[in-house]
Amino acid sequence: MTESYWTPETLEEMVSARSKILGPAVWAAATPDPRQLISFAGGLPDIPSLPGEQLLRAARTVIDREQKEALEYGGTYGPAPLRDAIAERSTRIEGVPVTRDNVIIASGSAHAIGMVCETLLDAGDYVMVESPNFPGSMRTIRSFGAHQVAIPMDEHGMRTEVLATELQKLADQGKRAKFIYCIPTHQNPAGCTLSLERRHELLELARKYQTFVLEDDAYGELWFETPPPPSLFALSNADHGIKVSSFSKIIATGLRMGWILGPPALVSRIAALRYDMGSSPFLGRVIAEMIRNGDLDRHIEGLRRTYLRKLERVEDALVRYCADYITYVRPLGGFFLWLQLRPGMSSRDVQMAANERGVIVGQGPQFFADGQATNHLRLAFSYVAMEDIEEGIHRLGEAMAEVAARSAAK
Amino acid sequence: MTESYWTPETLEEMVSARSKILGPAVWAAATPDPRQLISFAGGLPDIPSLPGEQLLRAARTVIDREQKEALEYGGTYGPAPLRDAIAERSTRIEGVPVTRDNVIIASGSAHAIGMVCETLLDAGDYVMVESPNFPGSMRTIRSFGAHQVAIPMDEHGMRTEVLATELQKLADQGKRAKFIYCIPTHQNPAGCTLSLERRHELLELARKYQTFVLEDDAYGELWFETPPPPSLFALSNADHGIKVSSFSKIIATGLRMGWILGPPALVSRIAALRYDMGSSPFLGRVIAEMIRNGDLDRHIEGLRRTYLRKLERVEDALVRYCADYITYVRPLGGFFLWLQLRPGMSSRDVQMAANERGVIVGQGPQFFADGQATNHLRLAFSYVAMEDIEEGIHRLGEAMAEVAARSAAK
Repeated sequence: MTESYWTPETLEEMVSARSKILGPAVWAAATPDPRQLISFAGGLPDIPSLPGEQLLRAARTVIDREQKEALEYGGTYGPAPLRDAIAERSTRIEGVPVTRDNVIIASGSAHAIGMVCETLLDAGDYVMVESPNFPGSMRTIRSFGAHQVAIPMDEHGMRTEVLATELQKLADQGKRAKFIYCIPTHQNPAGCTLSLERRHELLELARKYQTFVLEDDAYGELWFETPPPPSLFALSNADHGIKVSSFSKIIATGLRMGWILGPPALVSRIAALRYDMGSSPFLGRVIAEMIRNGDLDRHIEGLRRTYLRKLERVEDALVRYCADYITYVRPLGGFFLWLQLRPGMSSRDVQMAANERGVIVGQGPQFFADGQATNHLRLAFSYVAMEDIEEGIHRLGEAMAEVAARSAAK
Repeated sequence: MTESYWTPETLEEMVSARSKILGPAVWAAATPDPRQLISFAGGLPDIPSLPGEQLLRAARTVIDREQKEALEYGGTYGPAPLRDAIAERSTRIEGVPVTRDNVIIASGSAHAIGMVCETLLDAGDYVMVESPNFPGSMRTIRSFGAHQVAIPMDEHGMRTEVLATELQKLADQGKRAKFIYCIPTHQNPAGCTLSLERRHELLELARKYQTFVLEDDAYGELWFETPPPPSLFALSNADHGIKVSSFSKIIATGLRMGWILGPPALVSRIAALRYDMGSSPFLGRVIAEMIRNGDLDRHIEGLRRTYLRKLERVEDALVRYCADYITYVRPLGGFFLWLQLRPGMSSRDVQMAANERGVIVGQGPQFFADGQATNHLRLAFSYVAMEDIEEGIHRLGEAMAEVAARSAAK
């Protein structure tokens, strides 16, 4: 066999500008640790709750009833039964009329966000992003060569007065943002929820500056005791608001299925550009059946109770083991606690000390577009086994104590 | 409700350069015809053969054995069991060692081709394309702003001497093609298979001009009596050859699952750029189980017999009803007959006359990058019901007779 011509070096001059922006490093490659780790790191659903049986039951029904349609191309918008089921369900939950024309099915919400970027972004464009934020979305936006303007948050979500200033700055240069990217409900990583007042302000700014709000709603339905304010999509009457949602957190991340709600003109433009011949009609119809037969709503109700119990157990343990070192705003839903460490304690040091004790947590810099150092940790309470929580937080507290002692000694 | 701001007009100035290239028209939107049509149009699998029960059985096994892994993120390369099963199966079929590092899972081969384009193409780049060709791929390549240089074919496939001339022309301008796109085996639409000699010539040219061969192998396994020559990927020793394949034609188009075989350096570069967090691990593991338990190989064997029977029935009917109007090269596999009409007969006229008789066929211009008029028709024999073939070709013959009479009268 001859020597291979294509190496990372010969390839570098061949790849596209977008590929050069991201470079050769593969993101999110799973590298399992041989130790039995207690993980508060990933935004993953509770394992015992995964609805395998409900999926199989729905698949059986779909094959019996509509095998031909499920196993043939379903069009670039996605299978009609799922678009209709989502429209009906959104109308019920959101309280605004949503029709099939507002809906396009995506292969997960990361794919949905990518399709919105493909449709709207050229290199050099501007996007406003909540900060801190989900690294995957920031990476996707960056890959299109767009500038990201970080808008800070407080406990009520994105600070709209800063957003107004930044949008005006762009307007003064004769530019406009292509969209404002945010996770308004049970934010990742910050856990906070954008207040109703700020939602109205944000949409008013989108209207004034003629841009879109791209609302990532992966966690919106997973509230604990009180439903969140209406979505930006709903408050915009399906005009300036684009909402991307996912079945990843309410069914399973392993399906890779999600959807976009938006103005019909944009939805059809997204459909026109996609090149994958649509997301799986088979999976789409299986999910439509789970919506139709009530399994999805029942499952979500169960998840709300499960995640609240997990949050409570984490909080109990935090009081016992970590109270001296942290503050946080209690989330109203979702998967994440965003811990602020006591001044002088570095999140990187705590992460490393915890890792040595077999506990993994997410640390602040990865959630900022500029990777700025912070003293934050992201604690996902969704995935960790209920029986591991006490022990995991205990070890995290030991890690914090060690780092606090070290910083005091300096 | 206020008037919507976002309309096709306000949106036009907001969308990306790529979106502007394609415009707002949605491609391949299914518009069912209320008439009971006999369709020779779509490259779709035989309906009674769709393996719904095998899929359900594999899904049951996967949920019982590995529910957690199947329902969680599987990484950007795709689930390891499917990559391994494809590597093992490719090694067996292709006769060259293929490892997991050569494999990335895609959401169908259209998605795979799109990912290769994203990784390699910038606006203004050059791609060599076999002509005629699959319209979906030409559309994807066009959306990236690349120039497509059409390379003509004869009964032995792409004319490599023309390819050599065109590659040299580019080289004289200090440019190189990013890749050569072809469907070497049971070509869509032309039905022909690239000879072994030309395969070697094509790869030699790829080496000489330092470019890739992007080989679309959607139909390669569906041979009737004789396996085709080795793939370009295999003949290149996994170096200049990139092969995209699909489970669409050998399982079902409704899964949206396919894969890429390529040099590891390129495969990891594709993984680095994708933003969808990988194709469905659930579907990937279901397919891996169908490979493992032998269902896939058994199913493909059955398909070979089914499609040969369909081809034979179509040919019998063509002899009876269309012999005066057509010539064609008999395909050795795949889904398509590429009929050349008698001089003076327009493929558009025949298509329309057939449509009036409730029969649909694909006509030539859509398969050429420049939409040039030809007197070709593409007849897919894969999808039409066995019992409709005789009647469908009968009506097609009537349509041809009508058009021939009209052209003679002119």
